Amino acid sequence: MVNANSSDSGTASCSSAENSKESSRCSTPVLDIERHECLKEKMRRRVEAGDRWFSLEFFPPRTASGAVNLISRFDRMGSGGPLFIDVTWHPAGDPGSDKETSSMIIASTAVNFCGLETLLHMTCCNQTKEDITKHLQKAKRLGLKNIMALRGDPTGEEWEEEAEGFNYAVDLVKHIRHEFEDYFDICVAGYPRGHPDAESYDQDLKHLKEKIDAGADFIITQLFFRSETFLTFLKDCRAIGITCPVLPGIFPIQGYGSLRQLVKLSKLEVPQEIMDVIEPIKDNDAAIRNYGIDLAVSMCRELLDSGLVHGLHFYTLNREVATIDVLKRLGMWKEDPRRPMPWAMSAHPKRRVEDVRPIFWASRPKSYIHRTQEWDEFPNGRWGNSSSPAFGELKDYYLFYLKSKSPREELLKMWGQELNSEESVFEVFTYYISGEPNPNGHKVNCLPWNDDPLAPETNLLKNELQKVNKRGILTINSQPNVNGKPSTDPIVGWGPSRGYVFQKAYLEFFTSSEMVSALIKVLKRYEPRVNYHIVNVHGQNITNAADLQPNAVTWGIFPGREIIQPTVVDPVSFVYWKDEAFALWIEQWAKLYEEESPSRMIIQYIHDNYYLVNLVDNDFPLENCLWQVIEDTFKEHDRPTDQ
Amino acid sequence: MVNANSSDSGTASCSSAENSKESSRCSTPVLDIERHECLKEKMRRRVEAGDRWFSLEFFPPRTASGAVNLISRFDRMGSGGPLFIDVTWHPAGDPGSDKETSSMIIASTAVNFCGLETLLHMTCCNQTKEDITKHLQKAKRLGLKNIMALRGDPTGEEWEEEAEGFNYAVDLVKHIRHEFEDYFDICVAGYPRGHPDAESYDQDLKHLKEKIDAGADFIITQLFFRSETFLTFLKDCRAIGITCPVLPGIFPIQGYGSLRQLVKLSKLEVPQEIMDVIEPIKDNDAAIRNYGIDLAVSMCRELLDSGLVHGLHFYTLNREVATIDVLKRLGMWKEDPRRPMPWAMSAHPKRRVEDVRPIFWASRPKSYIHRTQEWDEFPNGRWGNSSSPAFGELKDYYLFYLKSKSPREELLKMWGQELNSEESVFEVFTYYISGEPNPNGHKVNCLPWNDDPLAPETNLLKNELQKVNKRGILTINSQPNVNGKPSTDPIVGWGPSRGYVFQKAYLEFFTSSEMVSALIKVLKRYEPRVNYHIVNVHGQNITNAADLQPNAVTWGIFPGREIIQPTVVDPVSFVYWKDEAFALWIEQWAKLYEEESPSRMIIQYIHDNYYLVNLVDNDFPLENCLWQVIEDTFKEHDRPTDQ
Repeated sequence: MVNANSSDSGTASCSSAENSKESSRCSTPVLDIERHECLKEKMRRRVEAGDRWFSLEFFPPRTASGAVNLISRFDRMGSGGPLFIDVTWHPAGDPGSDKETSSMIIASTAVNFCGLETLLHMTCCNQTKEDITKHLQKAKRLGLKNIMALRGDPTGEEWEEEAEGFNYAVDLVKHIRHEFEDYFDICVAGYPRGHPDAESYDQDLKHLKEKIDAGADFIITQLFFRSETFLTFLKDCRAIGITCPVLPGIFPIQGYGSLRQLVKLSKLEVPQEIMDVIEPIKDNDAAIRNYGIDLAVSMCRELLDSGLVHGLHFYTLNREVATIDVLKRLGMWKEDPRRPMPWAMSAHPKRRVEDVRPIFWASRPKSYIHRTQEWDEFPNGRWGNSSSPAFGELKDYYLFYLKSKSPREELLKMWGQELNSEESVFEVFTYYISGEPNPNGHKVNCLPWNDDPLAPETNLLKNELQKVNKRGILTINSQPNVNGKPSTDPIVGWGPSRGYVFQKAYLEFFTSSEMVSALIKVLKRYEPRVNYHIVNVHGQNITNAADLQPNAVTWGIFPGREIIQPTVVDPVSFVYWKDEAFALWIEQWAKLYEEESPSRMIIQYIHDNYYLVNLVDNDFPLENCLWQVIEDTFKEHDRPTDQ
Repeated sequence: MVNANSSDSGTASCSSAENSKESSRCSTPVLDIERHECLKEKMRRRVEAGDRWFSLEFFPPRTASGAVNLISRFDRMGSGGPLFIDVTWHPAGDPGSDKETSSMIIASTAVNFCGLETLLHMTCCNQTKEDITKHLQKAKRLGLKNIMALRGDPTGEEWEEEAEGFNYAVDLVKHIRHEFEDYFDICVAGYPRGHPDAESYDQDLKHLKEKIDAGADFIITQLFFRSETFLTFLKDCRAIGITCPVLPGIFPIQGYGSLRQLVKLSKLEVPQEIMDVIEPIKDNDAAIRNYGIDLAVSMCRELLDSGLVHGLHFYTLNREVATIDVLKRLGMWKEDPRRPMPWAMSAHPKRRVEDVRPIFWASRPKSYIHRTQEWDEFPNGRWGNSSSPAFGELKDYYLFYLKSKSPREELLKMWGQELNSEESVFEVFTYYISGEPNPNGHKVNCLPWNDDPLAPETNLLKNELQKVNKRGILTINSQPNVNGKPSTDPIVGWGPSRGYVFQKAYLEFFTSSEMVSALIKVLKRYEPRVNYHIVNVHGQNITNAADLQPNAVTWGIFPGREIIQPTVVDPVSFVYWKDEAFALWIEQWAKLYEEESPSRMIIQYIHDNYYLVNLVDNDFPLENCLWQVIEDTFKEHDRPTDQ
């Protein structure tokens, strides 16, 4: 029987069907293949294709707001196209716990919510086998697929071997392979100058070989200061039969203090020629950083030019500027990374097959991922017409709520210290759309429904959106119609190259009940071209769409593929989204003001009385008629009532 | 959890989700809804919408070739858009057996292979409860959903009640409801003049009411000769509380003999004014038929004009002309029925969700249905990438094989009494494409891979196809590219109205190994625009497509719907199709000639040495490049070899 719908077995196993057979074939779209590959396969493919890559190392933050900032950094640095990121295991930070600052939670957030292939460090010394197994089980449950197996530092001054425990990273590698077989890809550390505790450089190389033989898949090295150091080490690795990828650890010097601290920890010696430059400028952070960038760029160039290095691993120290600068100068930072899907994907293995989502969460993808994280299966090919998708509650959605909730003063500056009328709310929306500063000189960079400034795609509709928001059509989501643009289009493109993407025009907004009355009259004239859903907070629901029939509003046609239709307007999900969308008025906006204050009552009034409306223009090859619908609605609304 | 892929529960239960809630909505495409409705729901919807319908009654044939002819008739009469057909239960004909002429097999063929909603008659007298249950179970297994519950005629002269058995149709209705609950829709017979065995007209009406109360869903009446007869009966039915649909049985008089026979069987009296017209012309079949048609048309008009009749049921006597003529004159025959899918659907309940098929069987849809009839699930939304679709063997495919196999002499006239070379085969293909008679004056109406003359869609490519067949590119399947034509397009349209349909250009052909060598060189220049699969009978397989990745080549975008992509080029299915396609050379063509004859050896040579090729041009918005590929291949083939 054709297993018609599950295009992927859904297992997290590494061997993808595409790779199981060898036959003459053209290049299947890389974006698509990588989605189903494990990290070591991605590396192998890149090495074979001669493509370069980079990866980024972060450490866990110390505070919740630090975590929120780090996650934003993941999003920004993720857009440059790292092959993976890694998160260090900080024994002091309760690394395997559920705290928002723990290594485990940070790494899992990177995978699940930022869509980044993530490598979680894990140390083994001073821990029981049971604890380690628990950590690994938890990592697996959270969607992590890659572990960097480390010994970790001893607690005391002297290293004491434990007979029954894990004394070396190799023990951890063996344990992972024994308990989890091939589930995890395993990385181990290499020391270009030998580990400081090792008897000798050669002895240390032998230990490295043992880790690989025990089942490790690739190596990331300790930092170093000269390209020869790494290249000699690499040659020595190859000489003793280490054939896996060895990624040089690049440390762009970013300041005098951090350099000294790192050197102390790693027991490395900074070459005199570097110290000679740095010492005189040690109080000039900018100068040191610029020097560090220059140094890193030239070292990376030497490594890449050797032809032996394909990927560079960056110790970012959780900072952006220096690393991005080095990558840009190397031409390795992707300014405009291709989007595999029109929405931000998750990298959780169980979501690998996911390729359809409701359009409603387009500006809140993390909320969507959060609310669907308990699902066992994800829609693939079709959304289908289930009557009960079990959307989770938003209550534990703290990390991302924090982001927009924390700077209350900031929000008041954007959304108004005081609101006088519904019209003041219209103005906030209008300033958000226009991007112009409001009368107090503050730009409205976000709204409760939109974490970020207007997407480039929405910008295509800017003029129309401004006009309608001013009149009280408070738009929170929209897309233009697209009739077969290349999939490489910088604004509306997504998916593998040489494809064609399509969209139906979509508009979603809050508006008053008076406006809705006019709209409903007008919509009669647009049947059946326009589909609509009109709901209020009490669940009153007016629609001309079939109850359980989703409407595909974004789709793509690609060479040698089935059709992909990544966004739909699903009537059932809309009811769940409606609750979230209305709640945001209160949770994120009204609560900025004192109880009983006029400002708060205005927002409360809107929450209680406005409707949430979505409109789809089904005739995607024609000019978008939704603006005309709104125009007609204004006219209808303004028409003197006949009595 | 969203049940992402099974858009339908797959149960055969009648209550479709679309109907379970009442809300304001626009008309969802009827074609689509009807696919998921049971017969009584279809009627209800048509009554509510004020749409008229007709249905057609057939009796089982006596011979296997009669069965083949009847099935062709189902296809032709099915194209006029009957709401359903019914097949009578002929006690003499072993009606529940597996014989190709049995009522059961004929009805199930109509459902499964002709895609017709079918009502199977079943009589109950002189049968045990167990036998009847077995019949019903078998009917269910074969995909039948509707039973016409009848008493049947007594065996002896006198009617004897059996204490334990079924004496009346009402017993059968009760039995069906008791044993099968709501699975079957049940029809019962009504007698506008009362059943001849009934004590009185009123008594007979009461019996009818009992059958309805026992669970019957609608009524078909015995034939009658005056519209008042039916309208009075209908009024009387309504008066005693029968509210279900009552379909008048229309009998267009087609000849003197058949009229007399029917009158005798049904114990009806033909009105004198009709006999007065018929008697004088009783030896003039054409005159009687014309009169019968006139009479039926005016009676039907009166019924429809009453506003009380929505559907007409025709006693066809297994003939086409009179019934079609009546329907055409009433404007009820659909000259150009909308295609819900680009391929011929099956009406088996388990295939309701089926909406994707490989393109290969486009000209042999019955073979495809036959080879997939054991599947428990059918692809819905996506074909997916199973590596082992279990296609059944063709061995039991007798009914349709018969059709093209039987007239050997006919086939020889079309395909050549004698073949002299491969070129004579090229000519056969070319005449098939051109539609011109061959030098012996015979049109080539079919080929082993194409049961019917060229489809209108393929006709769009006629000139190109003729040219390439002449040169030995022996095409067996093709479609032009289509970039967003209305779904109502008379040639390439399908699916609900107000949609847009798309296609990638497709070409499938046999050709020599020399031509394939040239083709492969040429195809390098068309990477990755063109996807290809090239196989020979031994299974050698050359392709540039991903092993398990189907390529959607037909898709449609509809208002308020997810994307539908009904045909794909699936690499795995192609291997199964290849076996069928090569076998047809031998089974249907070579075997027309004597063993060892030159003609047979030519076909055998082609079978053994040619390749089967399919090509897809992925760039559907551009001009189809496949003709250029073939053109280039001819040039490459003709190029003097450089040595």
